[in-house]
Amino acid sequence: MCRWAAYLGDAIFLEDVIAAPSHSLIAQSRQAREAKSPTNADGFGVAWYGDRPEPGLYRDVLPAWSDTNLSSLGRQIKSGLFLAHVRASTGGGTGRANCHPFVSGHWSFMHNGQIGGFERVRRVLENSLSDALFDQLEGTTDSELFFRVMLDEGLAQDPQGAVSRATSRVLEAARRAGIEPALKLTAAFSDGRALHAVRYATDGQAPTLYTAAFAKGVGRCIASEPFDRDGRTWHEIPQSSFVTMTRDRTSIRPFTPAAAALALAS
Amino acid sequence: MCRWAAYLGDAIFLEDVIAAPSHSLIAQSRQAREAKSPTNADGFGVAWYGDRPEPGLYRDVLPAWSDTNLSSLGRQIKSGLFLAHVRASTGGGTGRANCHPFVSGHWSFMHNGQIGGFERVRRVLENSLSDALFDQLEGTTDSELFFRVMLDEGLAQDPQGAVSRATSRVLEAARRAGIEPALKLTAAFSDGRALHAVRYATDGQAPTLYTAAFAKGVGRCIASEPFDRDGRTWHEIPQSSFVTMTRDRTSIRPFTPAAAALALAS
Amino acid sequence: MCRWAAYLGDAIFLEDVIAAPSHSLIAQSRQAREAKSPTNADGFGVAWYGDRPEPGLYRDVLPAWSDTNLSSLGRQIKSGLFLAHVRASTGGGTGRANCHPFVSGHWSFMHNGQIGGFERVRRVLENSLSDALFDQLEGTTDSELFFRVMLDEGLAQDPQGAVSRATSRVLEAARRAGIEPALKLTAAFSDGRALHAVRYATDGQAPTLYTAAFAKGVGRCIASEPFDRDGRTWHEIPQSSFVTMTRDRTSIRPFTPAAAALALAS
Amino acid sequence: MCRWAAYLGDAIFLEDVIAAPSHSLIAQSRQAREAKSPTNADGFGVAWYGDRPEPGLYRDVLPAWSDTNLSSLGRQIKSGLFLAHVRASTGGGTGRANCHPFVSGHWSFMHNGQIGGFERVRRVLENSLSDALFDQLEGTTDSELFFRVMLDEGLAQDPQGAVSRATSRVLEAARRAGIEPALKLTAAFSDGRALHAVRYATDGQAPTLYTAAFAKGVGRCIASEPFDRDGRTWHEIPQSSFVTMTRDRTSIRPFTPAAAALALAS
Repeated sequence: MCRWAAYLGDAIFLEDVIAAPSHSLIAQSRQAREAKSPTNADGFGVAWYGDRPEPGLYRDVLPAWSDTNLSSLGRQIKSGLFLAHVRASTGGGTGRANCHPFVSGHWSFMHNGQIGGFERVRRVLENSLSDALFDQLEGTTDSELFFRVMLDEGLAQDPQGAVSRATSRVLEAARRAGIEPALKLTAAFSDGRALHAVRYATDGQAPTLYTAAFAKGVGRCIASEPFDRDGRTWHEIPQSSFVTMTRDRTSIRPFTPAAAALALAS
Repeated sequence: MCRWAAYLGDAIFLEDVIAAPSHSLIAQSRQAREAKSPTNADGFGVAWYGDRPEPGLYRDVLPAWSDTNLSSLGRQIKSGLFLAHVRASTGGGTGRANCHPFVSGHWSFMHNGQIGGFERVRRVLENSLSDALFDQLEGTTDSELFFRVMLDEGLAQDPQGAVSRATSRVLEAARRAGIEPALKLTAAFSDGRALHAVRYATDGQAPTLYTAAFAKGVGRCIASEPFDRDGRTWHEIPQSSFVTMTRDRTSIRPFTPAAAALALAS
Repeated sequence: MCRWAAYLGDAIFLEDVIAAPSHSLIAQSRQAREAKSPTNADGFGVAWYGDRPEPGLYRDVLPAWSDTNLSSLGRQIKSGLFLAHVRASTGGGTGRANCHPFVSGHWSFMHNGQIGGFERVRRVLENSLSDALFDQLEGTTDSELFFRVMLDEGLAQDPQGAVSRATSRVLEAARRAGIEPALKLTAAFSDGRALHAVRYATDGQAPTLYTAAFAKGVGRCIASEPFDRDGRTWHEIPQSSFVTMTRDRTSIRPFTPAAAALALAS
Repeated sequence: MCRWAAYLGDAIFLEDVIAAPSHSLIAQSRQAREAKSPTNADGFGVAWYGDRPEPGLYRDVLPAWSDTNLSSLGRQIKSGLFLAHVRASTGGGTGRANCHPFVSGHWSFMHNGQIGGFERVRRVLENSLSDALFDQLEGTTDSELFFRVMLDEGLAQDPQGAVSRATSRVLEAARRAGIEPALKLTAAFSDGRALHAVRYATDGQAPTLYTAAFAKGVGRCIASEPFDRDGRTWHEIPQSSFVTMTRDRTSIRPFTPAAAALALAS
């Protein structure tokens, strides 16, 4: 599993989320509290939106706690919208291409969870992608592939619908492979304007997800687990929820898999 | 393009080929003489056969000349059969999974050349693999994929035939994609007993390939370019040749593409 | 040797200097024109000034041309004052701590050249540092040590004087070690406001140094060698010169070693 | 702190100690049982003796559990004497030069513990070294410096005496710096023939140390903590002990600091 945190609001330094809080994302890379594996040291990454429509991306394979570049970038870069992730591999080697967030055009995506029995469904899922999205594959993780399937389902036009249909495509692939579908999906993603998150699992045991207002209300966070207790109120997002955060509001809607738009090749 | 060297014979230290000669493979990583690009600094790798049927594998992303681990391993490890490679990327990011040699069971493989228009044929070639070989894919290079196609064509049973059919499969994929086939294939591979190499290009301009007896006849080398001139006689292998080296003899046969055993999915 | 480029002016994207020009710093990492060694692939680094008095710092050990993080950071980060460097090691292993620029408080420094016979003078120079500066040493390069000596000579109060005295300290250390002083010093450094550079060598053969106005006069550059020829006029800085660039003007003064303020321990 | 294990006996594969046991050194990198910090993910290293008098050395900065090279080397390399280490930094950045074991000629050394108040004594200890040993310094750890001090005290002639005098030199340096000496020293080292270890701390709380016979008596191990419980009997080495293991026997003697042979510069 993994840990992640995302922010939307007035521009703040990245370190205000990833390094400064008492239980910051970097602290969680060493010792997470609500994760199955406390250590999240198989690489890290941050995607942030600035002067361009597409995000910046910094990913590397060291544990987040020991990367001096991350610490300097966190002190220097300000952003009003960013996603940060520390990885605990459930499969897929340690390499930059397997570190979250993943980026495609304006979109960024990061994930805590896994596609159960991934080796049994990977091929059919890759083949279900359009040529353009197939060519974007850079690494070998289930998370990146889920992101490409989301894009294939029309993420830009209908974020919740696309995730919902992508989920169905994954479940259907498992059924065709003769295995019990097992998906854990606590993920965040953005197009540079809104910040979305989903918490869903086939067994109703998706990894935790929380939201909170950021210091003095300049912004809001959504994270795998609270990164401090300094008077901040964290709201746990229920299982089977889809969250959309904009500068103005946070909406939480029920989330269920939907019929996939694109059929798997028979 | 890239540079590589392989050895078969009495066990010698790896450094006797990769570091000690005046124009060793490490020297070639800095300044190759017969390559299109003189600098081969996008990672390196060595596969060697020792006490086990499958080879050891050490690959990393630094330039070969600056990797202190490579230098120590070269001084310590003795082997009677090894393949070593320095990479100049023609596509595919810099990462361990994209460094040669590639390994599958007993087999190891390394390549100098490229599949022209790879982005146009990659998907259909990946889809032409058996499930087992598809699942072995670790990186994103044309070289690794060519190796998996070779295995799919029965490398263990008929090395030259498998390479010949793999070549045809690649050429056919290009034709179906509506592009002119363009393959450059100067490669070496081994199952831990014999050492094979091929020099072939669709335009008759495959990268160079040389063989030579090793010091005092304890073994033989096959390499992209001569790594010294110290009284050693290097024989240039002609275009369209297939070389098989065993402890007893070196055979050189003509090489041409053959009909692929497995048709591409229509 | 190495290659570097620095910029002062209106905020521009880092990539406008390090990646976009036809002979950008990244292009120079692969194939420099005016350097003794054309390949500068032993790591790289960039220090930039933004919202804080101290600079951000991103350094890594891959060749600059293959680092995907550098390419993304270059596209995202804007700065009105930055220093960027690609390294060709003349000693000191490949590691982040040996990559330029080096940073101390507000100051950043990068160097093309070397202290001849460094192994003979390193210890006495380290011992000549104050405790505080000795404790700042992170790597093993002659360049970093020269920077710490500059700081020790009062860089903040008198930049040219400090470099001049640091030079003398190095020359004196060589004489005491019984070797002919041999220093090549083409370096740039900044406190976040002005940008300084020096070109000096004991044999009058210091690596090249050029200045030019940046596109449409929004800023100015100082670099090891011109990074494009697109109508820009590059001025070669003469041997034994000290350059100071501010937003308003560029001054070029003669540079010679001066008596060191701090004597070497006898 | 850190974890380490060493082996002396008939040649075995490195993985028989570092990867195969249920609580192998690689397992300890993820979750040590008897260490202050359970995670030991700030790099790793192994030094092994083979066909040459000086050891081979493989060190890298990833967590040991995710390094594919380590796993392959462990499967291939056989040795009758090797030292392996997983690091949890107590200071000194993450870099290869700061990973244990450290090597000097025939000698290798690795350490679990620390020199308390190292920043206060580092300079005087470095200055107490001979020029030749000072020049060997590659990284910035207290452990490496302790090893160089041991060599300076005549490690080759009198291993226990040298460690004893090195300990005194460190304690004396602390006293002169006006701080309470605080040393934790659970370390192993070898010249390629015998294997030595020491367990000592100024407060009597040195990290744990165990010995055991290896499977079927082909060799013996000494380790920070037991790496399995498969019928093997582990003996805890008492505080203030010095262990010497040869092919024939293991001796355990009391260890105390002794007067240093070389005085610190006054």
